[in-house]
Amino acid sequence: MSPTERLQFMELLAREFGPDPKAIAKAHAAYAKSVGSPDQWEAESRLRQAVVSPRSKILRQFNELPDGLKFLVDLRADVLKLIDSHRSLGVLDRELQNRLTSWFDVGFLELRRITWDSPAALLEKLIDYEAVHQIRSWNDLKNRLDSDRRCYAFFHPRMPREPLIFVEVALTGEISRNIQPLLDESAPLEDPTAATTAIFYSISNTQVGLRGVSLGNFLLKRVIEALRGDLPGLGTFSTLSPLPTFRLWLDQQFARDAIPLDADDLAALAEATGAAATPALLQQTLQRTRWSERPDLIAALEGPMVTLARHYLTEVKQGRFPFDPVARFHLGNGARVERLNWAADISVKGFNQSYGMMVNYRYLPEAIEENVDRYSEGGEVILAPGLAA
Amino acid sequence: MSPTERLQFMELLAREFGPDPKAIAKAHAAYAKSVGSPDQWEAESRLRQAVVSPRSKILRQFNELPDGLKFLVDLRADVLKLIDSHRSLGVLDRELQNRLTSWFDVGFLELRRITWDSPAALLEKLIDYEAVHQIRSWNDLKNRLDSDRRCYAFFHPRMPREPLIFVEVALTGEISRNIQPLLDESAPLEDPTAATTAIFYSISNTQVGLRGVSLGNFLLKRVIEALRGDLPGLGTFSTLSPLPTFRLWLDQQFARDAIPLDADDLAALAEATGAAATPALLQQTLQRTRWSERPDLIAALEGPMVTLARHYLTEVKQGRFPFDPVARFHLGNGARVERLNWAADISVKGFNQSYGMMVNYRYLPEAIEENVDRYSEGGEVILAPGLAA
Amino acid sequence: MSPTERLQFMELLAREFGPDPKAIAKAHAAYAKSVGSPDQWEAESRLRQAVVSPRSKILRQFNELPDGLKFLVDLRADVLKLIDSHRSLGVLDRELQNRLTSWFDVGFLELRRITWDSPAALLEKLIDYEAVHQIRSWNDLKNRLDSDRRCYAFFHPRMPREPLIFVEVALTGEISRNIQPLLDESAPLEDPTAATTAIFYSISNTQVGLRGVSLGNFLLKRVIEALRGDLPGLGTFSTLSPLPTFRLWLDQQFARDAIPLDADDLAALAEATGAAATPALLQQTLQRTRWSERPDLIAALEGPMVTLARHYLTEVKQGRFPFDPVARFHLGNGARVERLNWAADISVKGFNQSYGMMVNYRYLPEAIEENVDRYSEGGEVILAPGLAA
Amino acid sequence: MSPTERLQFMELLAREFGPDPKAIAKAHAAYAKSVGSPDQWEAESRLRQAVVSPRSKILRQFNELPDGLKFLVDLRADVLKLIDSHRSLGVLDRELQNRLTSWFDVGFLELRRITWDSPAALLEKLIDYEAVHQIRSWNDLKNRLDSDRRCYAFFHPRMPREPLIFVEVALTGEISRNIQPLLDESAPLEDPTAATTAIFYSISNTQVGLRGVSLGNFLLKRVIEALRGDLPGLGTFSTLSPLPTFRLWLDQQFARDAIPLDADDLAALAEATGAAATPALLQQTLQRTRWSERPDLIAALEGPMVTLARHYLTEVKQGRFPFDPVARFHLGNGARVERLNWAADISVKGFNQSYGMMVNYRYLPEAIEENVDRYSEGGEVILAPGLAA
Repeated sequence: MSPTERLQFMELLAREFGPDPKAIAKAHAAYAKSVGSPDQWEAESRLRQAVVSPRSKILRQFNELPDGLKFLVDLRADVLKLIDSHRSLGVLDRELQNRLTSWFDVGFLELRRITWDSPAALLEKLIDYEAVHQIRSWNDLKNRLDSDRRCYAFFHPRMPREPLIFVEVALTGEISRNIQPLLDESAPLEDPTAATTAIFYSISNTQVGLRGVSLGNFLLKRVIEALRGDLPGLGTFSTLSPLPTFRLWLDQQFARDAIPLDADDLAALAEATGAAATPALLQQTLQRTRWSERPDLIAALEGPMVTLARHYLTEVKQGRFPFDPVARFHLGNGARVERLNWAADISVKGFNQSYGMMVNYRYLPEAIEENVDRYSEGGEVILAPGLAA
Repeated sequence: MSPTERLQFMELLAREFGPDPKAIAKAHAAYAKSVGSPDQWEAESRLRQAVVSPRSKILRQFNELPDGLKFLVDLRADVLKLIDSHRSLGVLDRELQNRLTSWFDVGFLELRRITWDSPAALLEKLIDYEAVHQIRSWNDLKNRLDSDRRCYAFFHPRMPREPLIFVEVALTGEISRNIQPLLDESAPLEDPTAATTAIFYSISNTQVGLRGVSLGNFLLKRVIEALRGDLPGLGTFSTLSPLPTFRLWLDQQFARDAIPLDADDLAALAEATGAAATPALLQQTLQRTRWSERPDLIAALEGPMVTLARHYLTEVKQGRFPFDPVARFHLGNGARVERLNWAADISVKGFNQSYGMMVNYRYLPEAIEENVDRYSEGGEVILAPGLAA
Repeated sequence: MSPTERLQFMELLAREFGPDPKAIAKAHAAYAKSVGSPDQWEAESRLRQAVVSPRSKILRQFNELPDGLKFLVDLRADVLKLIDSHRSLGVLDRELQNRLTSWFDVGFLELRRITWDSPAALLEKLIDYEAVHQIRSWNDLKNRLDSDRRCYAFFHPRMPREPLIFVEVALTGEISRNIQPLLDESAPLEDPTAATTAIFYSISNTQVGLRGVSLGNFLLKRVIEALRGDLPGLGTFSTLSPLPTFRLWLDQQFARDAIPLDADDLAALAEATGAAATPALLQQTLQRTRWSERPDLIAALEGPMVTLARHYLTEVKQGRFPFDPVARFHLGNGARVERLNWAADISVKGFNQSYGMMVNYRYLPEAIEENVDRYSEGGEVILAPGLAA
Repeated sequence: MSPTERLQFMELLAREFGPDPKAIAKAHAAYAKSVGSPDQWEAESRLRQAVVSPRSKILRQFNELPDGLKFLVDLRADVLKLIDSHRSLGVLDRELQNRLTSWFDVGFLELRRITWDSPAALLEKLIDYEAVHQIRSWNDLKNRLDSDRRCYAFFHPRMPREPLIFVEVALTGEISRNIQPLLDESAPLEDPTAATTAIFYSISNTQVGLRGVSLGNFLLKRVIEALRGDLPGLGTFSTLSPLPTFRLWLDQQFARDAIPLDADDLAALAEATGAAATPALLQQTLQRTRWSERPDLIAALEGPMVTLARHYLTEVKQGRFPFDPVARFHLGNGARVERLNWAADISVKGFNQSYGMMVNYRYLPEAIEENVDRYSEGGEVILAPGLAA
């Protein structure tokens, strides 16, 4: 189908194959009347049946075809691309999401470890899909699958060659504070059986069409279980994560002259540079010097940048929850903010996202449930004891 | 859980975890108002969301547990046992059916051939689950898996050791008219590559909890495909099926003296027995003689019994469709009635179900779709040319 | 090929495809001359090459065919059947044994656990091949594969559906002294994780054509390893074995009036029966009474029978080694005689082999190597401390 | 073990663990005497037993260890490195070769197709082991595993991750005359189902320790079978092979002024260059001009070069067989020389081996056996009709 035909097909599905409003009205009237009576349960079932759309039966029929499930995932990716300009596709998007949520229920997903012994065609997909720290070559990939690393992915039985989401893990002796050593192909191998700490340093979703179908939280839960079963020496589980919108926010504060720091916070930087302790100095140092090559500047920047990042994580919100999407993901899964690492990613991408700042979100298995509750009820950002002080 | 606790748990799920009637009313009002406007699509999605029950989320959480899917299937089996005496369980039954229909979508089912090389633990389940012609021993089973037989089952990836439905097939040179040779362990082997005809002689559902989740029609479709791929010499696909409620109906007609036959129909029987050509003679011969041991009586009974069976299939209805459940199944899947076989199952069970009558339902691959349409629209019972005459 | 043609083919292989005596003589002369000189190594290789027969190349060519290896194993079984009456087949038998010994080198064998989940076609072979305690039915087999049992077999990669040798193991709390409870299908299940003891109660070779190719000793070694890895609670490894030729020997002693017992040994039996304490009394009691149904006779027979069995195991020889073939096998593998169990197998077969006597041969992992050395050097029959006294 | 220790271990094995010359002498005397008598067969077996060395039993014991087989293959590679300087290792080399020949019998080898879905760790080994046309990158490798290519390898069940020998095949519409298009990653894909011709363009042995154990001939036989089964449209099977020692020989002829050409053969070249038609002109053109960039020179060189290559293949011998090792391999396997391709490999390696000349050896399935016989008996180099003329 040409793009135009695809769009016509999608709009047809959305507009012409909805449920029958009259049948719905009738079922609803019966339901409303039945509430509290012994008939309520049957009326509820009938109402539920009435809102089922012919559209949804058509989607089910695709699933019978050999590659039907992948087709539907890709169809939703197409819908998502067009939805802003074609509002009626919204109902199709929601039906697809409902159906895919049911079909990609975590109970059906298979956790598989990926190693250098996995099929090359599968490994090639990791190279394509990696969304956090680009895989530059097959050697880079081999390093990430070495004996002191782990990589896990979820698969669906009907799409056995397509990883849905995958996580890369480094096995270390302490919580990593810097990404470059983890990506350094020439770094010496660690002994995995001596490792105490698992660092989740990259998590990538691969299927645009599964947006809104939660996979990540279950992946981390199952991977932590798998790692503990495999390597009983592991006791600490933490991410080393980007702060993808920190710089965006910070640059806005520079522009609005609204940096939440005072001169004391900037004293060390002023001393190192011989300039006045102002936000403008901070901005200038960050943007116009090669601070990442000067240990004295790195040191002088650490205090104010950590303060700003903590402020950003705890005070800057989208609704009741943090503005930062990665923070929302990990805090929502029950992690706490363990440490803020200055100059932790000095790549171009790291600089563009967060001036090089990274975060460790730590999963304490015994505290996860309580954290999920505190976060989801009150939007509380839980900090490690040292950070909260 | 004790049976009482299980019942309490089920009733709790049914009664306390329904959707919120007020939220539904509000969503319905908005939807009703939006019909025809550009807001309709979003309102439809919101209404659909409003009827989702907390109950259904609880069911999904079970699916995350290792044997959660099997637990839910078994839960529904329990619900079905109690539903007649506990009407409020109906809503739970429907939710479970909806959910299981989605999770057991045919797209997720795996067709596997079962052979004598399959695990003994699996084969033992065939012995347990066989519902049509009892498997009497491992030798009986081995005969049904021999080189001139085929056996296929659907499996779900989350219940890999549990066949959901299975069919037994004999490869023959013509449409079988009698079940005993197929069950005879000492019958000589046929050459499968010379076979022209596949006889489906037993289909068994195994999971009570999947009642109403259609599996059988897809199974036959996929098995016919698999057989054609494997053995290109096969051109004829037919069942050899019981008529499970034929005797029930016939005995009622005897009791009401309403047998749709006249004296001419019974002339041969009268001659063979030297008695008067009356329905009473027919009843007496069927019920009080050892006719199955007397070729002359078998021959004399054939005419009237075939006439009665054709009448039963074409005229005796449940709603618009045939009264006989096996007929409903095969005709609904697009088969036609090919032949009525008198004295085709002279076992005790065959006698109790249908005085030994059996039916061939034939699947003509090129006519299936048209047949499904004719049957489902007008309830038409399609007969082979010879029978219709 | 007809039997006659097969025999002709075998005799042809044996007689016409030997090495060239002249070439051998020349190579031997060169070798004999070279001993001690730098040419010795090359001369040795040439001599070895000269004795290779065209026959052996023909055997290798069979191995290239799809079922060639099984063909050769079966060919050797045929040769063994005919060898007594056709002496020239001896050379073919030896060549086949050499070749099969190389191809069935233990390094190529695969140890597989057999369970109720194994293919029925494989399990059926266990029923056929079981040589020690007949498997009477599929239920009997299922009992032997239950959760408190283990069954292991060796397979060759080229004969993947054919077990070469298999052992049946019961997991217990102590060394079993009686076979009937192990074969009792209604006996309650033990908890395998609580087991301390593994009882090897049946070992069967399946391929006549592999006679002389040792498989059993490696099987036990590998199975003990596998069991220890799987169930760390296991510390005791013992057989419960028949004494297959004990009665043969004992009846000969009766006939020759050479029973190595005196009146004291028989005093209890004399008391229980009220007869004189003579070997004749022993013989009569064993052969003409239903002693197995009378606890007093069982008790009175125990002393003399254990004494006789110990004498039989330690004093009755074939060459330097015990006369009993099962004793030779286990003692040669490094076991010791742990206990002699009177009235341990009261089946007809047990009575015919040994009047019901059985033996525990125990494998103490730390003593196996030393035991093998003591046995193979001096033919020493190692007894457990209690027995030796 | 250090290199010195390894050498000492090998020399110990070679020198101290030979058979007993006296026992051999005795067995040989008995054998010599028995020839023609009924005792001959037993005497032959005894003599064969006598020449078995303790050395060989030690080698078998290594095979019981988990990676024992790979250890022995690597041990032989070490022996081969040292054998020229340590003559006594010869006997160990021969024993290892005998044993490995038996254990790597073609009957035990498993042919596997290698694709882009094979484990990356395995594909990496192809990159390492490729010995004919270097694999420059993962993209180069992917091109060689694309849908219009095939790659097959032999594996041993005990070394499942180690390809022993592999062949790369291109599926084409005609016999390829030039290697560069086959190695060109940007060349368009062919439709494999339309292919008529399979071109074997690279065969690599991977294990030095298996020298003298023939694998290549069986590999080609099995691959041709597999290809015919898979793609019935294939009718032509040919190699595109290097002539690895052609330049070596040709340069020797230049040096000795013994080029078997006359002025007529060189007339076209003389005309194209304006120089005299002499062997010196040929040598100069080949070695000092950029002829591969000048179509006129390529054309003018073709006649004399093809003549020389045919002469080289048919007249230049090592013993009774061709001097060229690749020619010996394919002609010995039953191929014929199909075509000589001038300027077929203009890489540096191709230039150094053969001034760019390549050969198609063609396997005509129906003529293979006859060709093998003609070649192995009389050393006949079979040429395609066009070439022979």
